[in-house]
Formats: sequence, structure tokens, C-alpha cells
Amino acid sequence: MESAPYDLVVIGSGPAGQKASIAAAKLGKKAAVIDRKEMIGGVCLHTGTIPSKTLREAIMYLSGFREKSFYGKDYAVNREITVADLAFLVQKVMAKEMEVVRAQLGRNHVAVVHGAARFVDPHTIEVASVEGPTLLRADHILIACGTRPAHTATVPLDGKRVIDSDQLLQGTELPRDLIVVGAGVIGLEYASMITALGIKVTVIEARPTILDFVDTEMIEALMYFMRQRGATFRLGEKVVSVGRDAKDRVVACLESGKEVHGAALLYTVGRQTNADLMNLSAAGLEADERGRISVNEFYQTAVPHIYAAGDVIGFPALASTSMEQGRLASCHMFGASCQSRSEAVPYGIYTIPEISMVGKTEQELTQARVPYEIGLSRFDELAKGQMLGVEAGLLKLLFDPKTKKLLGVHIFGERATEIIHIGQAVLAFGGTIDYFRDSVFNYPTMAEAYKVAGLDGLNRL
Amino acid sequence: MESAPYDLVVIGSGPAGQKASIAAAKLGKKAAVIDRKEMIGGVCLHTGTIPSKTLREAIMYLSGFREKSFYGKDYAVNREITVADLAFLVQKVMAKEMEVVRAQLGRNHVAVVHGAARFVDPHTIEVASVEGPTLLRADHILIACGTRPAHTATVPLDGKRVIDSDQLLQGTELPRDLIVVGAGVIGLEYASMITALGIKVTVIEARPTILDFVDTEMIEALMYFMRQRGATFRLGEKVVSVGRDAKDRVVACLESGKEVHGAALLYTVGRQTNADLMNLSAAGLEADERGRISVNEFYQTAVPHIYAAGDVIGFPALASTSMEQGRLASCHMFGASCQSRSEAVPYGIYTIPEISMVGKTEQELTQARVPYEIGLSRFDELAKGQMLGVEAGLLKLLFDPKTKKLLGVHIFGERATEIIHIGQAVLAFGGTIDYFRDSVFNYPTMAEAYKVAGLDGLNRL
Repeated sequence: MESAPYDLVVIGSGPAGQKASIAAAKLGKKAAVIDRKEMIGGVCLHTGTIPSKTLREAIMYLSGFREKSFYGKDYAVNREITVADLAFLVQKVMAKEMEVVRAQLGRNHVAVVHGAARFVDPHTIEVASVEGPTLLRADHILIACGTRPAHTATVPLDGKRVIDSDQLLQGTELPRDLIVVGAGVIGLEYASMITALGIKVTVIEARPTILDFVDTEMIEALMYFMRQRGATFRLGEKVVSVGRDAKDRVVACLESGKEVHGAALLYTVGRQTNADLMNLSAAGLEADERGRISVNEFYQTAVPHIYAAGDVIGFPALASTSMEQGRLASCHMFGASCQSRSEAVPYGIYTIPEISMVGKTEQELTQARVPYEIGLSRFDELAKGQMLGVEAGLLKLLFDPKTKKLLGVHIFGERATEIIHIGQAVLAFGGTIDYFRDSVFNYPTMAEAYKVAGLDGLNRL
Repeated sequence: MESAPYDLVVIGSGPAGQKASIAAAKLGKKAAVIDRKEMIGGVCLHTGTIPSKTLREAIMYLSGFREKSFYGKDYAVNREITVADLAFLVQKVMAKEMEVVRAQLGRNHVAVVHGAARFVDPHTIEVASVEGPTLLRADHILIACGTRPAHTATVPLDGKRVIDSDQLLQGTELPRDLIVVGAGVIGLEYASMITALGIKVTVIEARPTILDFVDTEMIEALMYFMRQRGATFRLGEKVVSVGRDAKDRVVACLESGKEVHGAALLYTVGRQTNADLMNLSAAGLEADERGRISVNEFYQTAVPHIYAAGDVIGFPALASTSMEQGRLASCHMFGASCQSRSEAVPYGIYTIPEISMVGKTEQELTQARVPYEIGLSRFDELAKGQMLGVEAGLLKLLFDPKTKKLLGVHIFGERATEIIHIGQAVLAFGGTIDYFRDSVFNYPTMAEAYKVAGLDGLNRL
């Protein structure tokens, strides 16, 4: 069976696919999105952003994380937090988000085709489902097929005690202690959540440093904070094998000869894209060893009418940036003028506490030989910080000491991912740090950190 | 005893007094702040912003307010929340904030003189304390003496069951139901907190509408939300007497003949300034019937070297705006150039949920015959809203339909007072709502509401 041709067919219904298809529909184009029925919303909704960030909120609340500084270390809502408690919340939010995604696509008249997609030729995609195959033809195609956890023979998963992040919520009980292999964004987010539950975590990472795109001071603050709560970091250490010890506990053997023991092990090293399932060669395309597809600044692949966006093109692989990529790809393919404030894209990392940044880091400015001055604010000195029981937090402004122009904002702490957008706006409009001195900030708020940091920066001049 | 003359003497150590004296000190001036020893930090710290907003956070947490939508109505941390639970937190934050204020004044070499201040002549202030009177002479004086709850013979307080907001945390148990007289910011904040505890509240207000400076839609949303949780509003109703009924419950008799019964009554109608304690006439000054002192745009009183700032000059009487007034007064008296972004001053109202706004309201624009279009976002449709268990919330953008320039932002809901500052920056820099379409927002955040509202607004054009 073959349908009438589409202006755009999108492979994958995650953030990139949603925004691309909706943008096309708004331009009056006929658009379809392909995804397996149970995967509408993509990895973001099913195993990525939505479940992990919901889990994070549940842990923050159920563990009384913030309030411990008020009531003492042993304080929490439920003394025994179960996986069922956590999974209950996650399921609830996921179900609601599925509705939201379906409603949005429906409202914009984007066709949703259920099944697994593969290229037949550069303009034709076959969708396999239990009802049989469907052929879709399209003038333009967007590959937004997302990723899955990468696996390695060194760390054989058993789905129970040696698991990847997709399997995290399938267990029945929380481990007494946990080994996390891989200190990327995903590994650190889960490691800090588990730490917040009072469970000892050992993080093993082959590289000597972590999250190199983030300001070093923020990473060091996070590591200090996590260590205070019982986390151990083994950086520059390579796992050579994983097995069981005499007590039937999981043991990770490191190249250095060390052994790390734990009740369970979470493997989070890298992601593999789903591009290997698409029969790319039929479209005249190929991917790299991790399945990533190369694109130009307009998100075009080597075949100009085929675009790619989201996790399948690699860094930063965030829901927020994927949405924007999808929208921009769609605008470009249909010749719509489309602005983007690419000079001020924020990154949000949902560790506990969270990290967010926009603009340049100290390292980048130093490397580019751009002189800068800093303005600092500590969250425990803010009235709101005290009210929320915040124990740590830091907002750092980087600015040009001559013109006072804002160059970057780096935040570690409660609500960082929210308030970064204040600095982002000032940065986008080319503002100076005088803005923070001259503006009224609601009191008490965490946003007030900008005022404090602005004044601190001006004092240093 | 008379000390060497000061460049600036400030009466009152609240937000206005702190920022004014520190600004003077930074300009190299000799500054002193006068306040009674137990009142350092002013009303803000002792009976106003700090205790009420801490109480609010404590109630939000202890009542499981946010999480009720997940776990069901009966869910909470402690089934029995005591006044002691709440007061414990408040004391802790107040003590820490006292330290912060003292340290800030000390670090900036601002002298702190303990005692009650009154004018001897336009340049001399007598400070009365147990060690005897001290005379302070100053080239400039700032009156930032703050306010106290206004009282009326109609509602005689007994400090136990008929109380003002200062007496709220002195009780030993929470009432089963509460009458709140006065639906100003203070009355509404406390009424919504008590409602969040599951205690029935009846709010009585003489005027037919409430908080007229706030966008009507936000106020209506708040009232709807509070009513759903058991609040009753009696607007346009005047209390003529307060007594006890046959069951020894408090009863408020209304001019309309209605009787409102409750276990306790909180009286929050208006504030009276402390200017009546200052012997203003010796300085050649006078105040209005509520003790408010008139000032010009530079915060100068009728006597040019005497300034006034903070609650003593009236609306909006917020800690945030008082700080800015204090700073600006200080800059003006010492001829320092001082910019202020007065076109974009946000207001924060810490009801549950909170309300915040910046720029124009629909009512103001309609009155000024400025055409506008709106862009809306509902918080329960945001992924972050679902994760936080948010049941209600609204972000409304007002913009010029021709130029798309942002004219105002109105938010009702979780984190409103934080994220208003994003819209404030866009407004201050004269941005259009395209900014929200073209910018990447961290996902999931409440800040994402700007993106949703921006797209909604653009769709309406």
C-alpha cells in the first residue's frame, strides 16, 4: 500500500520530530511522523528526559532532600523509599505527556504512522507494523530517530544488577550501594539522584575530567557536594571486566588493578543511535561508528533533501536543543525565514543540585585570550536559599572588564535551569552587568543571585 | 553625648535603610543606621517578608502541597502540623538573616546605632536607648522607619484568637477555621497559606475587588484556586463588629447583616507607619493620616536634605522596591549618577500559588487605548509542571500586534516570582515576542512557559 506523497516525513516522534513536523504543518505543508506505537514521544518521553527528570523530582521530595538542612539528616517523608513509589510518579507523568504529544500532533494535522521505518530509496520509506508494510513517499525527510544506550562486551548486562539507564526503573528494590560506569550527563544525573537517596555511589570514568564543556568551578562544586553525601569518583580509570565477588556482589575490575564492589552497576557510557535500523545506504547516506549522521549548519545531510536532527547528530543531545534543530531544519527545507539566537543557547544538566550555563566558560575565554572579570553569588547567602534549605549553590557572571558586557553565566544549584534564562536574555540583547545593578529583583528569589553577583562584579572593577 | 557628624544617618535598618547606607558607604561617605537592637533588619526580617515567606515554604513542604496531586488529597509529611514546626523554621532563617544583615553593614563600615530615633532639629536625631540618649548630626537623613499593622476599634485584638499578622506565629495551635479581614497582599498571602494547610478560610474585604494593580485574570485564577481548597470570599462587605458567639467562637458581624464565624480572626487591613514616633515636626515635616511621607521622584521630602524610602512612602511597599528606593535616594543625595530600569519593575505576591508581573496590565493598556494581543501558556501542560505536581498556573504575554514588542508579562503559578525576571529582561531591552520563539529554553522547566506563550501569541497574529 502506498499513500499520497508528503511534503515532509519525519522518522522519530521525539522533540526534534515533533517540532519539525509541527513547523512544517504551520507552513501549510503535509507532514507525517513515523514511530513505533509504544514509542510516541521518543526516548525523551520513554526512557530519557521525562522519566529521569520526574524521578529526580520524586527523589528530591520523598527523600526530603532540601529540607534535611532544616530538620536534620535523618528527616524524610518515607523512611523506606521503594522503586514502586518512584515508578508510580514516573508512569503518571509519562502517560500525561503522551497525551500532550498526541494532542499537539493531532491539533496541527500531522499524520502519525505507527511502525519501524527504513529507507527504500532516497524519497521512499517503508513502515513495518503488524498490519503489514506501508510505503511513504516524501519530498523531504527528517531523520530524528534518536539513540539507545551503547553496550560493550566488557560490561555484560543482566537487566537486574548490571543494567543500563533504560532498565533502571524496572527493578523491584533500591540497591544498598551502586557502581556507575560513565560520568557523562546521564551517568552524573543518575549518580547524584542515587546519592540524594543516601545510597553510596562510586562513579568510574575513563577520562581524567568530566563534562569538559561545563565551567570547571561548577563541576568541582558538584563533585564536592556529591562527595560530602558519600559519592566516590574514580576518574581516569578504565573498567576491564565486571563479575561477581565471593559475597555475590557486583565487582568492577579496573585497569589500575583496583576492584570496586557494589550491590548493582549502572552502565552509562555513551549512546548508540538507531540509524543502523534505517537502511541508510538505500538513501545514499552513511553514519559514523556510533551511528551519528553528519549535517551542515542547516541540518542537511549529504543528500540535500534529507535532514537530520536531535540525538542522532550528536552533541549536545538535549531535548531543548533537539526541538530547536527540528524547527530550524523544517524552516530551511521549506524556505521559510527562521531566526535563531544561537549565540545564547543554554545547557541544563539535571544533577542534584542542577547546573546550567549560557555563553562562554572561563576556559574558552582564556583560550581565546579574551580578558574577563567575574561576579559571584553564593546561594546559601540568599534569603530564598535559606528558606528552601539550600546548602550549596553558586552563580558566576563572566563579563568584559572594559565594556562590562556580559559574556557568560554559570550556575550550580537550586533552580539553575530556570534562572539561567534571565542571563540568557541579557546576553542575547548584548547587555552589560549594570543591568543587574539597575533592575529590581523580587525578594526573596533565587533570581536575586544575579543582583548579588552583578554588584560583586562591579566591586571588582 | 554628641558624635561627629555623619554624611548620612538612616532611620531604620530594613531593606531601604540597608541599601541606602551601603550605597553611601561605597561612595566613601560616613553613614550610620539607627534601629532598636532587636529590630535590626526591620519589619522585613522580623514580622514581614522573611518570616512570612519562610512560613510559606514550610507550609508548602510540610503539607505536601505540590505533591497532593500525585499522591492524593490526604498525603502530607506530618499529618499534624504544629505552630512549633512552623515557628522553628522561621526562627532559624531569621537568625541567619540577622547575621547576614549585620555582616553586610559591618563589611561596608556602616555604623549601627541601637535605639529609638526622633528628630531634635532638621539635622539632629536623638537616639534613646537604655544607656541614655545619643545625638547624631547628619548632612543628609533618610527616613526608612517602616510600618506596623494598623488597628481599628471595630476589631479589638486579643493577641490570641483575634490577632494581627505580627501575632500570627505567637500562638500554640492552628485554628480549625479562620476569618481573614482584609484582602490586600498580606491578607491574601496568609489566607492562601492557611488554605494550603487544609484549614477553611473566609476572606472579608470592604472593597468589591482585590489587588487592583494586578491583572484581573491572575486574581480570578487565584480566587478560583483558593475556593477549590475551601476558601470563601466576602467582597464588598464591611466588618462592623467582632465578638464571640454562643459556642465561644469568634464572630465577625458584617454591615450587610451576615455573620461569619471562625476559631480565630486575622486582621490585615492596612499598615500604619512608624513616622508618628519620630517627632517629624521638629524637622519641619508632616505625614498623612496613615503616617505616610510624601517624596518626589528622587525620594526627597519637602525638606530637601531629608529623604524617605521604603514602606513609609506607601505603595508598593515591597522589600525589593524598597531596596531600590534606598539606593536611588543615596545616589541622589551625593550626586552620584544612578540608573534605574523603572520601566520594568516586577511585583511579586507570595500567595499559593504565587503571582508576579512586570510591565502593563490589560486594564492599563485598554484604558490608555493601546491595542494589544496576548500569548498564553498553562502550567499543567508543561512537562515540568506535571513533574512538580502543579495543578494550576498561567503565563500571559501582552504585546503590540503590529511591532510584536513585549508590553507586559503576568504569571500565576509555581516559580512565578523567579521566572518573571526573564520577561523583565526582554521588556527592559525592548524585545519582541519573537525572542521567545527564537530562543532555546531548558527542558523541562517552568521557564518553557515563555516559549509556549510566545508561539501562542504569534499564532494569533
